[in-house]
Amino acid sequence: MGDAGNVEKGTNPSFVLKAVKDVSFDDIPRPTMTDPYDVLIHVGQTGICGSDVHYWQRGRIGDFVLTSPIVLGHESSGTVVEVGSAVKNLRVGDRVAIEPGVPCRHCDYCRSGSYNLCPDTVFAATPPHNGTLSKYYKTAADFCYPLPDHMSLEDGALCEPVAVAVQICKVGNVRAGQTVVVFGCGPIGLLVQCVAKAYAAKTVIGVDVSRSRMELAKSVLKCADGVFESKPMPRTELGEGDATEKESEWNARAAEEIKRTFDLGEGPDVVVDATGAQACIQTGVNLCKKGGTYVQAGMGKENVVFPITTACVRDLTIRGSIRYTAGVYPAAVDLVASGKVDPKVLITHRFPFEKAEEAFEIVKKGGENVVKVVIEGVK
Amino acid sequence: MGDAGNVEKGTNPSFVLKAVKDVSFDDIPRPTMTDPYDVLIHVGQTGICGSDVHYWQRGRIGDFVLTSPIVLGHESSGTVVEVGSAVKNLRVGDRVAIEPGVPCRHCDYCRSGSYNLCPDTVFAATPPHNGTLSKYYKTAADFCYPLPDHMSLEDGALCEPVAVAVQICKVGNVRAGQTVVVFGCGPIGLLVQCVAKAYAAKTVIGVDVSRSRMELAKSVLKCADGVFESKPMPRTELGEGDATEKESEWNARAAEEIKRTFDLGEGPDVVVDATGAQACIQTGVNLCKKGGTYVQAGMGKENVVFPITTACVRDLTIRGSIRYTAGVYPAAVDLVASGKVDPKVLITHRFPFEKAEEAFEIVKKGGENVVKVVIEGVK
Amino acid sequence: MGDAGNVEKGTNPSFVLKAVKDVSFDDIPRPTMTDPYDVLIHVGQTGICGSDVHYWQRGRIGDFVLTSPIVLGHESSGTVVEVGSAVKNLRVGDRVAIEPGVPCRHCDYCRSGSYNLCPDTVFAATPPHNGTLSKYYKTAADFCYPLPDHMSLEDGALCEPVAVAVQICKVGNVRAGQTVVVFGCGPIGLLVQCVAKAYAAKTVIGVDVSRSRMELAKSVLKCADGVFESKPMPRTELGEGDATEKESEWNARAAEEIKRTFDLGEGPDVVVDATGAQACIQTGVNLCKKGGTYVQAGMGKENVVFPITTACVRDLTIRGSIRYTAGVYPAAVDLVASGKVDPKVLITHRFPFEKAEEAFEIVKKGGENVVKVVIEGVK
Amino acid sequence: MGDAGNVEKGTNPSFVLKAVKDVSFDDIPRPTMTDPYDVLIHVGQTGICGSDVHYWQRGRIGDFVLTSPIVLGHESSGTVVEVGSAVKNLRVGDRVAIEPGVPCRHCDYCRSGSYNLCPDTVFAATPPHNGTLSKYYKTAADFCYPLPDHMSLEDGALCEPVAVAVQICKVGNVRAGQTVVVFGCGPIGLLVQCVAKAYAAKTVIGVDVSRSRMELAKSVLKCADGVFESKPMPRTELGEGDATEKESEWNARAAEEIKRTFDLGEGPDVVVDATGAQACIQTGVNLCKKGGTYVQAGMGKENVVFPITTACVRDLTIRGSIRYTAGVYPAAVDLVASGKVDPKVLITHRFPFEKAEEAFEIVKKGGENVVKVVIEGVK
Repeated sequence: MGDAGNVEKGTNPSFVLKAVKDVSFDDIPRPTMTDPYDVLIHVGQTGICGSDVHYWQRGRIGDFVLTSPIVLGHESSGTVVEVGSAVKNLRVGDRVAIEPGVPCRHCDYCRSGSYNLCPDTVFAATPPHNGTLSKYYKTAADFCYPLPDHMSLEDGALCEPVAVAVQICKVGNVRAGQTVVVFGCGPIGLLVQCVAKAYAAKTVIGVDVSRSRMELAKSVLKCADGVFESKPMPRTELGEGDATEKESEWNARAAEEIKRTFDLGEGPDVVVDATGAQACIQTGVNLCKKGGTYVQAGMGKENVVFPITTACVRDLTIRGSIRYTAGVYPAAVDLVASGKVDPKVLITHRFPFEKAEEAFEIVKKGGENVVKVVIEGVK
Repeated sequence: MGDAGNVEKGTNPSFVLKAVKDVSFDDIPRPTMTDPYDVLIHVGQTGICGSDVHYWQRGRIGDFVLTSPIVLGHESSGTVVEVGSAVKNLRVGDRVAIEPGVPCRHCDYCRSGSYNLCPDTVFAATPPHNGTLSKYYKTAADFCYPLPDHMSLEDGALCEPVAVAVQICKVGNVRAGQTVVVFGCGPIGLLVQCVAKAYAAKTVIGVDVSRSRMELAKSVLKCADGVFESKPMPRTELGEGDATEKESEWNARAAEEIKRTFDLGEGPDVVVDATGAQACIQTGVNLCKKGGTYVQAGMGKENVVFPITTACVRDLTIRGSIRYTAGVYPAAVDLVASGKVDPKVLITHRFPFEKAEEAFEIVKKGGENVVKVVIEGVK
Repeated sequence: MGDAGNVEKGTNPSFVLKAVKDVSFDDIPRPTMTDPYDVLIHVGQTGICGSDVHYWQRGRIGDFVLTSPIVLGHESSGTVVEVGSAVKNLRVGDRVAIEPGVPCRHCDYCRSGSYNLCPDTVFAATPPHNGTLSKYYKTAADFCYPLPDHMSLEDGALCEPVAVAVQICKVGNVRAGQTVVVFGCGPIGLLVQCVAKAYAAKTVIGVDVSRSRMELAKSVLKCADGVFESKPMPRTELGEGDATEKESEWNARAAEEIKRTFDLGEGPDVVVDATGAQACIQTGVNLCKKGGTYVQAGMGKENVVFPITTACVRDLTIRGSIRYTAGVYPAAVDLVASGKVDPKVLITHRFPFEKAEEAFEIVKKGGENVVKVVIEGVK
Repeated sequence: MGDAGNVEKGTNPSFVLKAVKDVSFDDIPRPTMTDPYDVLIHVGQTGICGSDVHYWQRGRIGDFVLTSPIVLGHESSGTVVEVGSAVKNLRVGDRVAIEPGVPCRHCDYCRSGSYNLCPDTVFAATPPHNGTLSKYYKTAADFCYPLPDHMSLEDGALCEPVAVAVQICKVGNVRAGQTVVVFGCGPIGLLVQCVAKAYAAKTVIGVDVSRSRMELAKSVLKCADGVFESKPMPRTELGEGDATEKESEWNARAAEEIKRTFDLGEGPDVVVDATGAQACIQTGVNLCKKGGTYVQAGMGKENVVFPITTACVRDLTIRGSIRYTAGVYPAAVDLVASGKVDPKVLITHRFPFEKAEEAFEIVKKGGENVVKVVIEGVK
């Protein structure tokens, strides 16, 4: 952003986070092609993610802190307008889904196939890197995936949350015939249910506190074989004893009730928490079958009260899921292309580029009628 | 124990836990051979484990509750005195290490190679099953492992904690060339260090609060390449803020200090917690390399405050370790037989059978000069 | 069979292989329940497998040699008529699919989850063990799987070849989104295609020399996205040079043609050979993607000319598949119950028990109109 | 090589393969630094490998064909003389082992951690890429590994065959406590034995036809717990029957004899063939334990007569090993640095750079007293 003085006006209009709670439309330089593997994309559609809103409102996530302005947005698709000399997989005019993080390719993580852990990844809209809410976005050709003709640019943008769900199912080793319980029926939780079902899971159960979101899982996306309305422990239950212990017992009982309701026997093979909420985490660990896999996909508080002894004696495998690894984005595009996963059903609001701030306000406000909000690119 | 009335006096003297804090020497029936795969063992040596003392003092561990008398003891070796008609691997006179849990062999866990999770396991000294502190103990032949001539019955009894350590290294997937940090220098923590070193780990670090136990790791067993004296956060540090958050930050700083002290770069490949203490768990999760493995081996409180977001974004694999799986006991016997692991160095006290209660008192009392206590069998 | 003299006439009519090419209907003793985990099954339906015919015509497969009479048949379902005292999963009257091999449960293979490798397995119709073509068959309760009401006994019997296909897909690690090529469109090859498709493979290709069998794959079972008619090298191509080398080159070219025909790029992720034919094995190894998995499922000659250098430099994982492991039979029953795999489409001939020999003759004769032949049990 | 006309004389003397059987010393341009991740190495020591000789004598290996001159050599170490602007892991003056293949970093293989399969790898001395037998060699910084002070440049060069052995043990999943049989006691076979032993394999057996090479395994390197002298089937055994079948039976008997000689019970957990010879491959497959792993490391003929049915019914996992993957070279450097593997014992001949052709002649001639030949770099 530092060389904004050199901008030819109108070349690359962008939606910029200047400081906490301070966004504006700026014109920034059109990126110049430097690496022979680069491509320049005319951005078509961009979904808004909770993390975008988080940077806007708080200016930081974990170790990533906003110290200078960045363009927002990282769930995008677009059309190739320029290709570097070494690019073989793309041609000008190709419509693509954009994987938003390009790793360094030289560190041990990159070389061993764990590029999601590369500390030098250039990740869109993660400080200090610009995001995709510009007219033009430059990235590496191998992190752009061509869309078949029948997929819209909207579908292409939504490949990002689908890819997040594919990665979660990959680390959870979700396989045909399994039983999978997913806590959370927001976009990621719902898409994890969809991907698990597309992977031929035998039984998929969605858990949430919101009936309308659960309705999405059961009747609209039809990804869940059953849904469970979870009830946080009422304050009135606290009484006088140890609150931590009482909440822990309440949540262990919730696990038993889920097993009973859906006849899950020893419990599901895989539990995914897409909420980050302590109550869900406690219920999820208690729910999981002995020897099963628990995936922490949602992030909430830094620390939670965790049933460590239960996790240990049940021989659970507990995994986190972060970003995407090789093969995940192509799998996401394939799932959408084949119709096995249809993420556009989740879109509740669409905005033109010039109303990007309004779009962000809607996501910030949230509520049951807000699921996925999409911003069209600059024409 | 119910048919104690039928006992021929003197046939099978045993050390019995009758109720919480109530032990006695009783004579119980010599077991009768019923299954063709059974063997009868004349028990030679028995180590005392923390769980034995726990049942004695509290009467329960998790779901296992003492409701009728049981014989104590489960870390034993002995000599075969009778074999069933189908037994092929053992002969009368063979000296053996006894794996203390015999699973049902018919459930899904048993059939799929996870017999450590079998809910119907007959586990020595886990209510309602009798332990091994009897003159004679009947078990399944394939859960007894012959000792080579140069191994003593004491070595054989100590194969049990070695097997626990082997299982921990198995779930942690400890491999040659890795860096492994172990929290806790009690018998299990020390043996995990020994097994990791025997498995050709490049660097093994032991962490404890006790200098004398760390000395065992560094100078006696020579299993640790380095030891780190951990310091719990002093009360005086608490001040007025959120105690949970302060403790969490203190433990994260301890992780950084360990990395710095031993030049561990991104952190160890594998972290094993053999303490169950919240401070160690928090430090351990913060210490582990991205993409690494954290094994919860020690059990303390049911719930701990756990750095879930760190575990998630670092893509850790978190595993519990419980009992032993196929191949683990033979590996333990091999490690002791080859001299790669020498557990008898850990023995600080030896008692004859008739002083079993005194032995238990010593373990209960604990202290830095008590590591492993062994009880000789009835002659 | 030795105590045939003690038979009460009519108690357990059976179809017995007395010697090579010598079968008869005999009455043998109704099995007596000895083990508390035993169940007695009234056999309902039995499919005929190539191995049954092989024992009939040749008297041996590998190390298993017919030295005394055995009852034939191992692909069966039936109804429980008696249960042992320890049986919890079954009740009299339950209709079940019968997994035909019961392992010893005590060896290292059994204990580590590889019971398919147990050398002491009692496998139906594998010398010296009796098969299932009797009125009554005794087996272990945990190797019988209840059928839901809507599944017929015929469906239950056909769970056996489905289970073989599930095991093949398990060792091949067939997963959602993959490309799988299967050589052979006989019952096993077709069912592997069905299971791969049910496991959400993206593209499944069947290869065979028979157009009618390929038609089954493409139009009837609809399990293959494409079929390829393979052509063995004509004798006229041999000319004067090294025949082995020429055949090898012909088959490598066939691999290229398959890739080109179906636009498979670098090749399929998984290749399964369900023929055992040298030409298919050579083509399959050449076809498989670098780093991919090749599964040898069919057995033909002991030795074949094998492209070992290609397999090596391409870093293939080559696996055999033998029998079934834990979880495979339940998965097969689930696949049939859910309708994802419908093996009864394969049935071309049905016979009553008393025409069992005629059924065997039909399978021996073979031909394009013979796929699966089923024999009804004694009423 | 095309711009040899631009060479300043004396800048980069090299040992060049101009055509089949035609080598010469040429001066080629000193490489220019173009990529910010590049480093320029002053080559210190270079080992000769069979593949170097193969290109010299035959001009091709598999699909790699010599069509224009290339510099030979790929087992090298050296000293950093120039570093690109982005290089963080190296400084001028560092002594390094050079991993000889730099992959494209953009293809699916590279991104998923299988860079050994990258088709666009720039591999030293594999046509059309220059090798390391120059004064200066340019490569990527992350494919150079610093040597600790106590390691010589000779040790550094020999990290290449050690890395080949580490990769073989990695694909074979060689672990502590296992039994490993290695066919072939040439440099790679011997180093596989060393690495397996360093990885805490319980028993390592070397097999060869040469007693002097076996002596290296047993008495010099002390990497083998036992050695077995294999005897090819004498011509006189052929008689009149099917030669293929007789050889197959001979080799199966050899497998039984190896098991008996070393008391290997069911057979070794891992078999490595480092010969590529049909007799060894047949013996090795017959030798391997059910469920075990067979690694094809040596390459000989394109096709061999292979016991496919035995491999299948024994549920073997058969793997090839090609080049190196992430972490392998660092592991090799560590093994040499720690003294656990000491490859310099294998060096039988040392030559100055100007006698490179003589060195190649010695390797070509071979014989029992030629193991590893090393060429010193240009001063």
